[in-house]
Amino acid sequence: MKLSKLGEFGLIKKLQRNIPAVSAGVLTGIGDDAAVLKAPDRKILVTSDMLIEGIHFDLAFTTFYQLGYKFLAVNISDIFAMGGDPKHFLVSIGIPDKYDSEDMIELYSGINEIAGKFGITIVGGDTCASKQGLILNGTLIGNAAERTILRSGAKEGDSIFVTGTLGDSAMGMCLLMKIKKQIRRCESGNASIKLLGKTLVCRDVLALANKHLMPQPAPIKNTQKVTSMIDISDGLLADLGHICDESRAGAIIYKEKVPLSLELLSVAKSLGRDPYEYALKGGEDYVLLFTAPLNFRTRAYRIGEIIKKGRYIIDGNGKKTPFKAEGYEHFK
Amino acid sequence: MKLSKLGEFGLIKKLQRNIPAVSAGVLTGIGDDAAVLKAPDRKILVTSDMLIEGIHFDLAFTTFYQLGYKFLAVNISDIFAMGGDPKHFLVSIGIPDKYDSEDMIELYSGINEIAGKFGITIVGGDTCASKQGLILNGTLIGNAAERTILRSGAKEGDSIFVTGTLGDSAMGMCLLMKIKKQIRRCESGNASIKLLGKTLVCRDVLALANKHLMPQPAPIKNTQKVTSMIDISDGLLADLGHICDESRAGAIIYKEKVPLSLELLSVAKSLGRDPYEYALKGGEDYVLLFTAPLNFRTRAYRIGEIIKKGRYIIDGNGKKTPFKAEGYEHFK
Repeated sequence: MKLSKLGEFGLIKKLQRNIPAVSAGVLTGIGDDAAVLKAPDRKILVTSDMLIEGIHFDLAFTTFYQLGYKFLAVNISDIFAMGGDPKHFLVSIGIPDKYDSEDMIELYSGINEIAGKFGITIVGGDTCASKQGLILNGTLIGNAAERTILRSGAKEGDSIFVTGTLGDSAMGMCLLMKIKKQIRRCESGNASIKLLGKTLVCRDVLALANKHLMPQPAPIKNTQKVTSMIDISDGLLADLGHICDESRAGAIIYKEKVPLSLELLSVAKSLGRDPYEYALKGGEDYVLLFTAPLNFRTRAYRIGEIIKKGRYIIDGNGKKTPFKAEGYEHFK
Repeated sequence: MKLSKLGEFGLIKKLQRNIPAVSAGVLTGIGDDAAVLKAPDRKILVTSDMLIEGIHFDLAFTTFYQLGYKFLAVNISDIFAMGGDPKHFLVSIGIPDKYDSEDMIELYSGINEIAGKFGITIVGGDTCASKQGLILNGTLIGNAAERTILRSGAKEGDSIFVTGTLGDSAMGMCLLMKIKKQIRRCESGNASIKLLGKTLVCRDVLALANKHLMPQPAPIKNTQKVTSMIDISDGLLADLGHICDESRAGAIIYKEKVPLSLELLSVAKSLGRDPYEYALKGGEDYVLLFTAPLNFRTRAYRIGEIIKKGRYIIDGNGKKTPFKAEGYEHFK
């Protein structure tokens, strides 16, 4: 239905029907001037993220469902990066004329899907018209663990870990931007497609695109000995740079220890690209990057160590190259 | 400085210098994945507001300082409308190319001005590029009073109160939109200006414009017997409508009891307009509208009463007219 027919309050009512009822910890949800939340015993965590059409997403490449899913996923990732437990979400949306209420319901179904997985309740926000593109701002509130894990606690001698493969999302985005139409052919059952004369396996292409469109944040379970943590949104080198900056320390990365997916390896090989370019600088992985003492037992991948100062990558031949914090930065 | 030169992280550092240091209740402020806040004993309040250039504001009529001030003011108003105490603010900004870092520092100085008045700390947010206009999203977190005041508690026989004069902001906005250039002449010392052949007193014009550009939210002190409350953002009739909807009750407004400022009366008279049109439907007053028992002692203006059902305005001659919830609604 056209929003001009439904109006702001009509849309809000329609969307509210698609939002699960108020849950534990929410004393008053959507519909008043502010939400009323039961405070946990000690500390709360709050994070906010803005997504703007044409800057952060392109609706030619993503469905509203996927967009809603990712919108909340990136906020969840920030709460996990503090060692916390996400609880309450506020959604502000600026909606341009060209989208209708069905689009917004689809967006909310993506939000609700991942909210349900992690027991998160939507408790409020703002809904307004936009003359420009679609604008989303999410604020996620979480309960903090007894020990909050900041970016600033890394110590010389700590090992550096990541919780998942890197570079998939960046490669997925490149594929989506270059061959969206051909990816549609993958979705309709083709086994392979062509790009620049090279053959790509559809299963790989779809897996990488999906990593970009619907990141799957996951917390680490045992944070007792973790000294610092961040989620990888700007890219491994850039986000490790944030940890080094805040911890006033240096870092070495063992390039060959950086985990790569088989899909990234396969597609990069077909295209004649270096997969590490994507893994080190790509961004939007939404896996956790953390530091802990050498003897820390974890299922995460150990990719390097914290040193006194300097930032280096060591390759398989033992060659040491300094690195700068390269990654995405707005305005530049 | 151009943002393209400064970059996202450079801008954030510059703005951080303009944000007062971390204060009581903030365990970790700006600079990590999420802010860490000390939770109050019982309940927290959260509200979010999105402001989009060309929809909510026009930088031809407002300075960045005024915009920053109003941006936080409207969020404070929502926390006051729940009987709460505003504490922590998260600011997301999407910044188009045409604005530079000085503009953003001016915006933050407006935010800081009103934050300082009410003891609010900026604890985080997001900063990104926008291809369209300037986009602001604020999330304000507050401590709830022991008794939170919702929209839903109004009871038949309760009196209806407002905490300030109405319609000033709406008239101020009309003047700004119609005669911005002439208002500049007021600002440079003229005693009067002309609009449509009528003479307007500059002092009145400036006072009304200021009510629109820099609303001054104020809490009510004694909320013990208050049964329902809302802040007037959509307009008296629309917001009273929200209270009636949520409380499943009706209302009578005594038109002549609705408080009007001398400035509104004077300008409306000069222009041959009905000041009550602005006071009843104008919106953006950011004064509180609340209900309480008849014997409630308050310095607020008593403008009507809650009845079983129906919504009426009674004028000075005792003439009773039904009203609908008229006010601003997005998309319509």
